[in-house]
Amino acid sequence: MLSGTPQLTRRDLLAMIGTLAGSAAMYQAMTTLGFAQESPYKGPLKLDGDPKGASVLILGAGLSGMVSAYELSKAGYRVQILEYRKKAGGRCWSLRGGDKYTELGGFEQECKFDKGLYLNPGPWRIPYHHHAVLDYCKRLGVRLEAFVQVNHNAYLHSAKAFGGKPQRFRQINSDFNGHVAELLSKVTRQGGLDQAVSKEDREKLLEALQSWGALDGNYAYAAGDRSSERRGFEIDPGGGQMPVPKPSQPIGLSDIVQSGLWSSLSIGNLYEYQTTMFQPIGGMDMIAQAFEREVGNLIHYNAKITEIDQDDNGVTVRYEDAQKGGEAQTATADWCICTVPFSVLSQVKTKVSSDMQAAIDNLPYAASIKVGLQFKRRFWEEDEHIYGGITFTDLPNTLISYPSTDYQSSGKGVLLGAYSWEAWAYEFTSLPPEERIKKALEYGAQIHPQYNDEFDNGMAVGWHRVPWTLGCYGEWTEEKRREHYRAASAIDGRIAMAGEHISYIPAWMEGALLSGLDATGRLHQRVVNG
Amino acid sequence: MLSGTPQLTRRDLLAMIGTLAGSAAMYQAMTTLGFAQESPYKGPLKLDGDPKGASVLILGAGLSGMVSAYELSKAGYRVQILEYRKKAGGRCWSLRGGDKYTELGGFEQECKFDKGLYLNPGPWRIPYHHHAVLDYCKRLGVRLEAFVQVNHNAYLHSAKAFGGKPQRFRQINSDFNGHVAELLSKVTRQGGLDQAVSKEDREKLLEALQSWGALDGNYAYAAGDRSSERRGFEIDPGGGQMPVPKPSQPIGLSDIVQSGLWSSLSIGNLYEYQTTMFQPIGGMDMIAQAFEREVGNLIHYNAKITEIDQDDNGVTVRYEDAQKGGEAQTATADWCICTVPFSVLSQVKTKVSSDMQAAIDNLPYAASIKVGLQFKRRFWEEDEHIYGGITFTDLPNTLISYPSTDYQSSGKGVLLGAYSWEAWAYEFTSLPPEERIKKALEYGAQIHPQYNDEFDNGMAVGWHRVPWTLGCYGEWTEEKRREHYRAASAIDGRIAMAGEHISYIPAWMEGALLSGLDATGRLHQRVVNG
Repeated sequence: MLSGTPQLTRRDLLAMIGTLAGSAAMYQAMTTLGFAQESPYKGPLKLDGDPKGASVLILGAGLSGMVSAYELSKAGYRVQILEYRKKAGGRCWSLRGGDKYTELGGFEQECKFDKGLYLNPGPWRIPYHHHAVLDYCKRLGVRLEAFVQVNHNAYLHSAKAFGGKPQRFRQINSDFNGHVAELLSKVTRQGGLDQAVSKEDREKLLEALQSWGALDGNYAYAAGDRSSERRGFEIDPGGGQMPVPKPSQPIGLSDIVQSGLWSSLSIGNLYEYQTTMFQPIGGMDMIAQAFEREVGNLIHYNAKITEIDQDDNGVTVRYEDAQKGGEAQTATADWCICTVPFSVLSQVKTKVSSDMQAAIDNLPYAASIKVGLQFKRRFWEEDEHIYGGITFTDLPNTLISYPSTDYQSSGKGVLLGAYSWEAWAYEFTSLPPEERIKKALEYGAQIHPQYNDEFDNGMAVGWHRVPWTLGCYGEWTEEKRREHYRAASAIDGRIAMAGEHISYIPAWMEGALLSGLDATGRLHQRVVNG
Repeated sequence: MLSGTPQLTRRDLLAMIGTLAGSAAMYQAMTTLGFAQESPYKGPLKLDGDPKGASVLILGAGLSGMVSAYELSKAGYRVQILEYRKKAGGRCWSLRGGDKYTELGGFEQECKFDKGLYLNPGPWRIPYHHHAVLDYCKRLGVRLEAFVQVNHNAYLHSAKAFGGKPQRFRQINSDFNGHVAELLSKVTRQGGLDQAVSKEDREKLLEALQSWGALDGNYAYAAGDRSSERRGFEIDPGGGQMPVPKPSQPIGLSDIVQSGLWSSLSIGNLYEYQTTMFQPIGGMDMIAQAFEREVGNLIHYNAKITEIDQDDNGVTVRYEDAQKGGEAQTATADWCICTVPFSVLSQVKTKVSSDMQAAIDNLPYAASIKVGLQFKRRFWEEDEHIYGGITFTDLPNTLISYPSTDYQSSGKGVLLGAYSWEAWAYEFTSLPPEERIKKALEYGAQIHPQYNDEFDNGMAVGWHRVPWTLGCYGEWTEEKRREHYRAASAIDGRIAMAGEHISYIPAWMEGALLSGLDATGRLHQRVVNG
């Protein structure tokens, strides 16, 4: 900018645009200036151009397969879907009373939850910036409610800290912030930041630390109203002539840092877990069911794929009945979108380029387990005033998540009693399901002794033993992504891969949808442009 | 503890109790050892003993009056309630389409919200530790949903910072934490804490700061995946061959501290606003309606109290018809619970001790205003991906709160467009209601330019002009509380005061309920003990 030119701020510019062109234009300008929409999802897919009767065979009726089928059939394609299971949804799955599930190796479980209760063995929460998931929920009429990720009254627990006694999140959080603010205030006031930070900024920083850290007038984090207004009181304020409020005693810096409990403090600040998160009312598979209502007529269920072949003219897929076996059947189409997880696909004869085959063969899948526990009453609410949210522990169950729905309802309740990964997940699945549940109870009872009296029944799903996925999600390392992702996501002859594993958001439904939409869009371009 | 005695930890003790006496006993022990229940609310009131036909006259059918009536009539008292309005609930109030409201001075407003939409002019959220409110909701069948207080995708806004451009909460929050962690790490590593913190603790502190503040391997808070996983990306991760994710650029320390936006960062850490907060599904007055279903038959509506008299034998209250005026009527009883706000009561001739009269005359009431705005569409969700939660601003409207319900519903939406106090509240109410709404629109449009095109209609309630309260809540200073609280909360002859103002939780429904319960309990003791 030339010297002497009056500096036009972004605000001036916006005001000018607003005056000249009205507020709609101003909002457009704000967007252009970086206001919104970092998402690669740009709204409903537009598939312009005539598909000229082209057909697409979709393998797998999970979210990526169903969204592809939905968009392609709307655009005039002839679509069919082959699905291994007798229902749609893939990992978007909810277990309810009466459901049966048989894992690899033959262990069968029957779910005995009460009516209205469920476990989401797969995805269980939706970030506010998963725009594709939210948009399809809106368009397909899936109602959402808030999922509580951080609950200040839930616990942080370490078997090795505080004598194994769980601590309320609010206390560890307040005290960590308070000590950090006090330490940095002290240093600032003693001149320790004089080199690094300007005088004006130091003054504001002190003001900020005092406010943010609940420091008192002397920049100390100490027992009193200010700290208790964060961490809670020893005696809460009451009414009339009830006992007068009494502040609580903060935990010292050393106990806080040595406890390790700080490792769970920032989870709610992660982009993926920030407020506002959602869950569908009634279970995650409400999304699967909504898609199934749209494309269910295109799905061929119980189809176990045995071979995928292609040539210049089209794709041929051989499959057999997943329940009864028997003679191989054949499905053909001009094009194919394959959403079969690479963990399974690597065991199917597939005619693709060697680059694609290398991608298929080289993507490891994460092992994980979820254990759902039904209790005779919602003791976490009744006894401990924990409504939704998550308790974190360093025991092998890693967490306990309380239902974010039907608060204060009487009757039974189902909580997520374990969500474990890798080595701990394998430890769980080395046992039969009823023993896995016992383990989850044993760990959880260290936090909630009521477990012992109130347990009713449970379900344990280890994803590496789920026959139709053989793993939880495609676990790209940086190196594997560099080596194989481009090939994995390219249209290989007449076949495009889709699913959470063909995305930068593995394990999330958003990854599955965006991948399906992207594959669909590129396939369509190929078709209409010849 | 004697030297040589093996030290018994709390955990050992609990384990021992668990082994000897079972888990229920263990939980009792944990509670006793400080596990739960800081609240003065100890569950449903037990009023043992025979009231021998005693009668109680309750003044005001707000929550404190209705809970007193509910408990007293269950215990066998003869109860009647006098209520100024033609409906119950007091400040627990929701405005819906068709409702009319006339304020002091005569301005009348008719609410034109669409069916299903509402504004809570009074209380609008329930903390998880307001045990009395939650317990009555449970017992009276009021269904709750999560109220979102902190939304990482809502805005922090200052007209004086960032050219007036609102900033996403997640960005200011991540960057503030990051800079604080980086500064304190640097000092720690340079030896600046060597005197204050032990070596073992310094090592753990560094580890904690790196984790909590999203610092990189060099303890720096810098553009990259780690910071973007908190503050969000410039390009979000996508699927297939969508553009690859791109990290965003953090805001510098100086801009963060000078902006003042940090002043709203810790609100979600306050005990009163921590997760999980609630609201009744359908509007706050679902609680009032639930109580009214129980005690409505005891309420005499439209009763404007003109004098409260008492002698050794009982209480006599004179009142007239609040609508039609006319001749004074009289109600008598053995005892009285008066829940009339002191702001109103100070204008009623009341026979009480001089100490009580001093309390009545000396409690100032807070001025505040709420403005509800209906828009033609939920643009905050559709355009800006803000679902529930609150945007804070330094403009006189102070905040914008988005509805924590019916997420993604189509049709119109009502948001809270202003919630202002004292001087700013008086400024609003110096104008007629339609002008107050215009002001709220003018301020809000600086954050959401869509206001200009999408506004439909609004309601503005200034509490200091509400005829039945003449203020928002009893604003005890420390000095006033020392001087007057004991007298205000004492049973004065045959009269006990109750309401949020007779509590240590003024302005909250919990204060009203606890105060009513406490007065009821003490009155009952007086009755049964003669």
